Amino acid sequence: MRLALLIEYFGKPFHGSQYQVGVRTVQSELETALSTLARSPVTAVFSGRTDTGVHAAGQVVHCEWPEEDEFDTRRFCWAMNGILAKDLSVVDAVVVSSDFHARRSAKEREYVYRILNRPQRSPLLKNTHYFVRAPLDAEAMKAATGMLLGHHDFSAFKSSNSDNSSTECEIRRADLLKLGEGRLEFWIVADHFVYNMVRIIVGTLIEIGLGKMQPEAMSQALAAKARDLAGPTAPAWGLTLNSVKYPESFHLFDNSEKTELSLGEPKPRE
Amino acid sequence: MRLALLIEYFGKPFHGSQYQVGVRTVQSELETALSTLARSPVTAVFSGRTDTGVHAAGQVVHCEWPEEDEFDTRRFCWAMNGILAKDLSVVDAVVVSSDFHARRSAKEREYVYRILNRPQRSPLLKNTHYFVRAPLDAEAMKAATGMLLGHHDFSAFKSSNSDNSSTECEIRRADLLKLGEGRLEFWIVADHFVYNMVRIIVGTLIEIGLGKMQPEAMSQALAAKARDLAGPTAPAWGLTLNSVKYPESFHLFDNSEKTELSLGEPKPRE
Repeated sequence: MRLALLIEYFGKPFHGSQYQVGVRTVQSELETALSTLARSPVTAVFSGRTDTGVHAAGQVVHCEWPEEDEFDTRRFCWAMNGILAKDLSVVDAVVVSSDFHARRSAKEREYVYRILNRPQRSPLLKNTHYFVRAPLDAEAMKAATGMLLGHHDFSAFKSSNSDNSSTECEIRRADLLKLGEGRLEFWIVADHFVYNMVRIIVGTLIEIGLGKMQPEAMSQALAAKARDLAGPTAPAWGLTLNSVKYPESFHLFDNSEKTELSLGEPKPRE
Repeated sequence: MRLALLIEYFGKPFHGSQYQVGVRTVQSELETALSTLARSPVTAVFSGRTDTGVHAAGQVVHCEWPEEDEFDTRRFCWAMNGILAKDLSVVDAVVVSSDFHARRSAKEREYVYRILNRPQRSPLLKNTHYFVRAPLDAEAMKAATGMLLGHHDFSAFKSSNSDNSSTECEIRRADLLKLGEGRLEFWIVADHFVYNMVRIIVGTLIEIGLGKMQPEAMSQALAAKARDLAGPTAPAWGLTLNSVKYPESFHLFDNSEKTELSLGEPKPRE
């Protein structure tokens, strides 16, 4: 039977999600744990790859599972998390139909990029936020995020060493949130992403925030499809793959725990 | 002249804030950096001690500084942060009057204790949240937090190895916030705190949340002043000293950066 797994990982200690010989990757650690538990080799198919250092709060993976009797989600997750190191966790697991595919069935991906913009560095945020010392103009950055919405060719926001997959993406959400204490969050949702796309968009937003580029530079880079018109690639550790969405017909994960229940005013400060 | 420093640290790699022979502490690292920069021995006086593993987003310290000419905050902070390791940062610094004392002048301290309550552990939150697997009744916990408000004798919430300072504290805020994804935050503000007090209060709240104690147990432990009527001491890594407040007459730090400026709905998810 086929399983879908919701996994979370801290990106820093991994050489990315995808298997590579001789280095520690999320896929190799996960497959080793799955194979140990299954007592036979198990291959994990990811919704998409994440680079070295990129975090995931809601990566989705599928695999074939040999047990055919009743599947106990909690026991499976506990057993997996007993094997896995502390920087990788199976948060949920569910039996899915055999036509479910973690990458091909995905409708959209949601990423968040976190920036700390204040004069001095932060020990508490250093592993999840990109520290930018010079003041950023959040209004200018916000103006540029609006230009991302809709259907565009993201050739200008593609790493030169990426594969030949489509550069046509539909951006369904692009928001810059200014939280307290110099914290900025850039949220983006699209049907799919080109390699390094979010980090190049954020690198461009930061150039705009610094006044080195105008907000219109975002539209111009999109229209010209020229990598040199976009900004540099922002560092990996600010980026988190937050969630992957699938058609409801797959009955994937129970999202009831994800509901925002407030018993008071949340006061966001790390 | 006297300086007040706003410092931030990640608690895990330190044996607490207070100087101890032969181990790494926040005070010893800070004093070494200050003395290096001043080219003479400098002693740092903290607003209060934090235990091994406890974090600080806004610890306040004062020291005597030999330079008598114009003080440049940014240059001082940059120089300090150039010397200090990445788990400790001087966020701000200001010249204060000689009657300012980081501990004695403090009006109130604000702590936050973070809990992750879901079935599986989180790699992204593991260093700042106490992971509780069994479901917690947040409403029962919230009812108990209300009983903390006002003036009480916290003898029941005092570590046995604490000193003989006053156990009379005035609690000015005590809130349990239920954020999304199983995250709980307990915020507490008081004029001062007894040793281990927040962690014992949280340990009691968790017993209440698990149904092992009734909300009224909080009031009963306070009234009886008996340590054995309160819960266990919750672990250090969930706790952060968020801020220390002083009379405005000291003109301490520019808090303009701390204002919550929202360009959209913040979506709290780590």
